[in-house]
Amino acid sequence: MIRVELLGLTDLPLVRPGDDLAALIAAALDRQGLALAAHDLVVVAQKVVSKAEGRLVRLSSVTPSPTAERLAAQVEKDPRLVELILRESKSVLRVRPGLVIVEHRLGFVCANAGIDRSNIQQEGSDAHDETVALLPLDPDASAAALRRALEARDGVPLAVLIIDSHGRAFREGIVGVAIGCSGVAPVIDKRGDPDLLGYRLQVTEIGHADEIASAASLLMGQADEGVPVVVMRGLRYARGEEPARRIARLPARDLFRPPPMELG
Amino acid sequence: MIRVELLGLTDLPLVRPGDDLAALIAAALDRQGLALAAHDLVVVAQKVVSKAEGRLVRLSSVTPSPTAERLAAQVEKDPRLVELILRESKSVLRVRPGLVIVEHRLGFVCANAGIDRSNIQQEGSDAHDETVALLPLDPDASAAALRRALEARDGVPLAVLIIDSHGRAFREGIVGVAIGCSGVAPVIDKRGDPDLLGYRLQVTEIGHADEIASAASLLMGQADEGVPVVVMRGLRYARGEEPARRIARLPARDLFRPPPMELG
Repeated sequence: MIRVELLGLTDLPLVRPGDDLAALIAAALDRQGLALAAHDLVVVAQKVVSKAEGRLVRLSSVTPSPTAERLAAQVEKDPRLVELILRESKSVLRVRPGLVIVEHRLGFVCANAGIDRSNIQQEGSDAHDETVALLPLDPDASAAALRRALEARDGVPLAVLIIDSHGRAFREGIVGVAIGCSGVAPVIDKRGDPDLLGYRLQVTEIGHADEIASAASLLMGQADEGVPVVVMRGLRYARGEEPARRIARLPARDLFRPPPMELG
Repeated sequence: MIRVELLGLTDLPLVRPGDDLAALIAAALDRQGLALAAHDLVVVAQKVVSKAEGRLVRLSSVTPSPTAERLAAQVEKDPRLVELILRESKSVLRVRPGLVIVEHRLGFVCANAGIDRSNIQQEGSDAHDETVALLPLDPDASAAALRRALEARDGVPLAVLIIDSHGRAFREGIVGVAIGCSGVAPVIDKRGDPDLLGYRLQVTEIGHADEIASAASLLMGQADEGVPVVVMRGLRYARGEEPARRIARLPARDLFRPPPMELG
């Protein structure tokens, strides 16, 4: 029998810009009597990484462009939020009311450039002056930094993933996906591996880091469960140093990628 | 701290048509000293369900239609296999050499209609007479039957998922997805749930069963690991009786669904 454990940290404090996230995670682990073990996977929700890195923007500080104003009217969103979505994106692929699906500057196709306002502490009570969180500038670098800090603290080799939840084409529901990783292979190349009976597999690659992200996401929940860190223990995962942005399929390789919209 | 366990069964025997899969799983659990507990999630690889249900086809028994012959030449696949892919599908969405992406009759968008030959015991040594496995006729019904049989045997309430691995638009790598389920909600509607700070979430649905499928898929591996059954224990999953085919997004609701190809 293979046994793998998922351990969800329930008492990380609300994270603020400039916080030392590795120290907060280590303190929460200590409080729960949990010591990191060699080759644990530490899976961290994007939102707390963005907060610690100060990737928060007050909408009152944003001046929307005419393009953002036009698109905002079309999708019935705040023009300042649409401005941020456009700044964070390479292109817009699809829109409908409430939804702007983009190719994020990191290469991932996602809704609203991964920007949202849930679980962001709002400064003041003015509904017109919301604070929103952008994705980390470089989630792979964030994962590597967290890994170094936690490894130095605990003296064991680790892997770190930073995850978000994305919608998918063809299937309902958002699922956990990796947007940053360090020490774990984002994808596993299985070409040519024999199966149980010695045949060669036709399948090319396994979405390894995304499967880990979805597993951790089950514990994180999506809202008020408050489990921003999950430790996965016992999985013989594939180690590697490729970045998570490797998972983003190049547009030219994608059979379902529409051309970017003309925003004029 | 939240603790969830994934327990992978390593010694299920090779499954043959007509086998009582619930009995085989129960025997494997017994051998490993594992008793199912109330509300365990039993996650089963599609392949063993298909084998037990006799969803195996010898290619020598298949006569390809002219349409299958033409498409086979285009994608460089065996015309008999392409014939089976077409029979199992509502429409073909995209093709390239080695790959036919279809809307399966169950509604899922997947490569080659979920048909493959890995880990299928071949009858005889004639490479021209391969045996391939089709998806179960009704994976939701298969999940419900397995659940009833295991619940009756163990006297505890359970949930059962049947999973496959699918590719995705926009991201590299295949990941575990649910194609059949019983006792677990395929998706969770989060609209209107408050977040930590009392705001309303904008997100609509969580791909709950797919996240469970991906978690289990990590243990199953994709090839010679031989772990076709994973028990997930300790997750406060969403119970429900909607079928997994509920996860397949209706084409009219899908922002990235191309029109079916004309096969002529």
